[in-house]
Amino acid sequence: MAKPLELVNVEDLTICDSTAQMITKAREDGVELFFDRANAMKACPIGEKSACCKHCSMGPCRMNVNSPYDRVGVCGATVDTILARNFGRMVAAGTAAHTDHGMAMLELFRDVINGKVKDFAIKDPMKLYEVATSLEIPTEGRELKEVAMDLYHELERTYTQVDGEIPMVKRVPKKTLELWRQAGIVPRGAMREIMEMMHRTAIGVDQDYKNITQQISRTALADGWGGSMVSTDISDILFGTPSPVEIEVDMGVLKEDRVNIIVHGHEPILLEAMMISAADPALKQMAVDAGAKGINLVGMCCSGLDVMSRHGLPHAGNFSSTEAVLVTGAVDAMTVDIQCIKQDLKRVADFYDTPFITTNYRAKIEGALHIQLDEHDPLGCTEEIIIKAISRFKTRKKPVRIPRKTVKGVHGFSYEYINYMLGGSFRGSFTPLNDNIINGRIRGVAGVVGCTNPRSKQDYSHVELVKELIRNDVLVLQTGCSQMALAKAGLTGPGAAALAGPGLAEVCETVGMPPILGLGACVDNSRILIAASEMVRVGGLGDCLADLPAAGCAPEWMSEKAIAIGHYFVASGVYVVFGHTFPMTKGTQFEKYLFEGLENEGFGKWAFSDDPKEMARLMIAHIDEKRAALGIDKARERVLLDMADRRSLDANA
Amino acid sequence: MAKPLELVNVEDLTICDSTAQMITKAREDGVELFFDRANAMKACPIGEKSACCKHCSMGPCRMNVNSPYDRVGVCGATVDTILARNFGRMVAAGTAAHTDHGMAMLELFRDVINGKVKDFAIKDPMKLYEVATSLEIPTEGRELKEVAMDLYHELERTYTQVDGEIPMVKRVPKKTLELWRQAGIVPRGAMREIMEMMHRTAIGVDQDYKNITQQISRTALADGWGGSMVSTDISDILFGTPSPVEIEVDMGVLKEDRVNIIVHGHEPILLEAMMISAADPALKQMAVDAGAKGINLVGMCCSGLDVMSRHGLPHAGNFSSTEAVLVTGAVDAMTVDIQCIKQDLKRVADFYDTPFITTNYRAKIEGALHIQLDEHDPLGCTEEIIIKAISRFKTRKKPVRIPRKTVKGVHGFSYEYINYMLGGSFRGSFTPLNDNIINGRIRGVAGVVGCTNPRSKQDYSHVELVKELIRNDVLVLQTGCSQMALAKAGLTGPGAAALAGPGLAEVCETVGMPPILGLGACVDNSRILIAASEMVRVGGLGDCLADLPAAGCAPEWMSEKAIAIGHYFVASGVYVVFGHTFPMTKGTQFEKYLFEGLENEGFGKWAFSDDPKEMARLMIAHIDEKRAALGIDKARERVLLDMADRRSLDANA
Repeated sequence: MAKPLELVNVEDLTICDSTAQMITKAREDGVELFFDRANAMKACPIGEKSACCKHCSMGPCRMNVNSPYDRVGVCGATVDTILARNFGRMVAAGTAAHTDHGMAMLELFRDVINGKVKDFAIKDPMKLYEVATSLEIPTEGRELKEVAMDLYHELERTYTQVDGEIPMVKRVPKKTLELWRQAGIVPRGAMREIMEMMHRTAIGVDQDYKNITQQISRTALADGWGGSMVSTDISDILFGTPSPVEIEVDMGVLKEDRVNIIVHGHEPILLEAMMISAADPALKQMAVDAGAKGINLVGMCCSGLDVMSRHGLPHAGNFSSTEAVLVTGAVDAMTVDIQCIKQDLKRVADFYDTPFITTNYRAKIEGALHIQLDEHDPLGCTEEIIIKAISRFKTRKKPVRIPRKTVKGVHGFSYEYINYMLGGSFRGSFTPLNDNIINGRIRGVAGVVGCTNPRSKQDYSHVELVKELIRNDVLVLQTGCSQMALAKAGLTGPGAAALAGPGLAEVCETVGMPPILGLGACVDNSRILIAASEMVRVGGLGDCLADLPAAGCAPEWMSEKAIAIGHYFVASGVYVVFGHTFPMTKGTQFEKYLFEGLENEGFGKWAFSDDPKEMARLMIAHIDEKRAALGIDKARERVLLDMADRRSLDANA
Repeated sequence: MAKPLELVNVEDLTICDSTAQMITKAREDGVELFFDRANAMKACPIGEKSACCKHCSMGPCRMNVNSPYDRVGVCGATVDTILARNFGRMVAAGTAAHTDHGMAMLELFRDVINGKVKDFAIKDPMKLYEVATSLEIPTEGRELKEVAMDLYHELERTYTQVDGEIPMVKRVPKKTLELWRQAGIVPRGAMREIMEMMHRTAIGVDQDYKNITQQISRTALADGWGGSMVSTDISDILFGTPSPVEIEVDMGVLKEDRVNIIVHGHEPILLEAMMISAADPALKQMAVDAGAKGINLVGMCCSGLDVMSRHGLPHAGNFSSTEAVLVTGAVDAMTVDIQCIKQDLKRVADFYDTPFITTNYRAKIEGALHIQLDEHDPLGCTEEIIIKAISRFKTRKKPVRIPRKTVKGVHGFSYEYINYMLGGSFRGSFTPLNDNIINGRIRGVAGVVGCTNPRSKQDYSHVELVKELIRNDVLVLQTGCSQMALAKAGLTGPGAAALAGPGLAEVCETVGMPPILGLGACVDNSRILIAASEMVRVGGLGDCLADLPAAGCAPEWMSEKAIAIGHYFVASGVYVVFGHTFPMTKGTQFEKYLFEGLENEGFGKWAFSDDPKEMARLMIAHIDEKRAALGIDKARERVLLDMADRRSLDANA
């Protein structure tokens, strides 16, 4: 850096105490973190409103964000064309991320079936049969391997097919699917949709924002009901479907007397392989010989979320803490695969003598050691990483300072588990959930998901929003960095029920579930789609996803994946609120189309707010509107009255 | 527009006299053209150097273009990461454009074979057998339809395959292919490469500019040897392989007393269908009844280039003239398909009461009439367009002013025709070309291609560059808007030989060919790859494409497609110069890698200049270097000596 950055007060950067401590330590150590840069580097005022176009070299053209119709681009592109094209490319990139991830999982699945990969196996044959059945693949009396191979071929269509409909649309509620067919947005195959999105957003191709939005929807649906959904299902089949388990989170999970290894990224395979290697007696002995009490494998970001609930592995924090955790000096190796890996991790790791290792050929970092993880011999890679970590433990040079905070919480609420939890093992069913929504104890369901972003205070909006939602009897489903924000805040434990409104609290107590359910990594948002579809199927809450008293929010999003996820929920019929930043110019037709027009066509819609209380208000208002449309608004009034009556009776008793 | 733009002198905007006249008329009429906007709207000074990143909402981050290493993005992305990622997305978009175009052609081919499309047929079975043979598909004693279906299935792999190598690599010179295999850049399938490119350029994925460049090369090769090449071959098979034909070009091809219809875009199908409809006796009679002498179908941009040489159809001009042609008032309909269609055409067309019709669902324009061209009933669309044009002819309101200039030239030099031309029909061969390069009469071969861009004077650099090249005995191959620039300048006729150097002039006279060979649309740059591969195969000019004394240039490029094309030439081994603008920050590692490093690894390399004389100097210097490396530099000295001697002898005779 040429000159020191002007530093912001730590308490304005994060509500995560451990991260705050490490920001302070980093400043003492003279190490710059991304929080500092986010505050020093002003976002481009035109780019942040998505009002510039770089899609040809006649530009880049910049619109006037205060008066968006006073000019057009050199080619004549209006601000609406430019906004829609930029949005389309974000969705294409986000969908590509999940598609590539999903294809990698599917290829691993194939090679496990055909015996080429020997270090992994099908851990959840029940889920395999369930997924196969949902896709109308015969299972009765057939060998597992045979069904698995059929499933592989069927799911491959999700990515490679160029005509027809992707297989998972079989799971979409009928009326929702009919709407998609009428609108011409049923995805053919994920790769074709991404390719066509890129083509249509090039100079001189699609220049009608509504027509561009049609392809945006088709592409996003190829993520939610395609790339992401397949990825989640295959991960469950290979590594096990999560069920609730108590997990320890926050930076205190690092141990000064152990070889601490952080695994950060998004695919389960690296962390699954690391676990095998970390359990290797020879490597364990090597760690002991180096003076350590053992090997301490710790997840971060989505890699951690995906795997922790399968194995009870501790988790050190979300995206905004991945630099900070290195500042502890206690990390003996950080290894990463794909997505959300800041390039700067390498420089911070170097400062603290932490080996920083990339493992996926798609994601190298300049100057970082790369050890390719070959799925046919994954342990070759992971053993080497552990040996490097042990060697660094032995020669730790800098003082270690680990924040003491750890929090316990329950995670791992897969769709399958929710079904079981609600109905019991013999009568697994979403009926109790629907009943309690219909009778008004539960007001509605919200998905609160997505990244953290140094342009807003880390975790703050996640925590405030979720607290407000459960206080208002809204059941909250979570994934990704948002889930970890609530975990660190202590709200994934039994204590959270105390913060829930009376109706929700009553249901939680009866069913024995918390009011905040963590479902996994950001790619696992597809679990929410499945759960929502099941709510429609069970009945009483309308005919399509758009009828449900439900809403979604990514209060601190930052990745293009979040835009793809947001839009697949919107195209599926869900109301989606994004927080703090949004790639949009106010007062434009495109804004009006995303924020209102799509809903008039039967889809969900987008909204924006930079205040978590307001986000909650918008979501609850939407849920109440849907309740009114379903004619179940009165039920809730009666329940609340009943409960108030009961409390006053209790008080008088 | 809020306020009138400051206007630049017309002679600084274009050397195309017709366009200049129409710019002047537009100003009289009070109609703003894109030339005006390009000069009024300054390009974003950071964006034009590709030094900003919008790939997540922690930004947009802006680098310091004068001191590119004094900061990094919020995530820590260096300027090299940002430059490479931006470049990668341009290549992804360009490749997507050609992939989508090629897939549409391939689907049409399939439906022609299986009889679902009845308005088109296989026009060039010879080419079908040639392409099939080149892909090792058995042809001996087999029905055309059978071979065609095999070819369809084989070529589909170009787009949909996820593993292995795309089929067309069978045409790549062995040593070039070996280099690609070693470098891991043989494309698997175009859609997979585009998808992976988009994933790797997302936040926190690939952050090593060399690793990103590897995927850039793989993606670009999936364009040149994939999407584009299949598109060209299938178009030839369906509509006929071009052979030289004299064409009339420039705006004077519009006729005041006829129903003038402009077809603009990139796919041949719309124009092929328009030709069928325009020949319909009933419609011809309708035009006559409306008082017209007939229907005058005119091509523009690449639609025109692709088709004109198949049918001798007139061509009105290139990309920078598509607004200007409307200003004549003589256009009774403009119809478009995909790519390079300025959104502003709609507004200009409205001003002159010209019906403006989009025909491809991928490319609508806000407010424009859309008549979908269904390949199963293409004439339903094209008949309607012609009726609209006739109706507009009948009710022309505004005065018509058509520039009088027309120029005749010869176009349609497919690879197959060059082969025939050089060697004759019984001994078709590139040997005479190679021989004349080896003996020094021809110094080398240059491809001069690409767009026009209002940020540089229209056509000027194309014409000056090509003149300088042929003067120096460099044979020039052309495609796209560049080819039309030279055509309008009168250099695609026999007169051009007079401007050629003595060696090139002698060969042209002997073989009976012009020194400037127009090969077709920008998607047809693949013809140059085939020709170059044949030069390697014939022998005497090295073992791989990188050995050839050849270079390429897009002096006035503007589309992302141009970057994809440029890079597939670079990855194939060719030296490529781009003009006037380039998405690059000076003094960076990424610049050095593209401009030098890739050549050290055995590939071609990029260069940049904003002066056509300098572009020519760079290209000729490279050609001379390659001649020296081949040991044929002395031969040329002898030839030139001989010719100088001969001339002095002639003078003394």
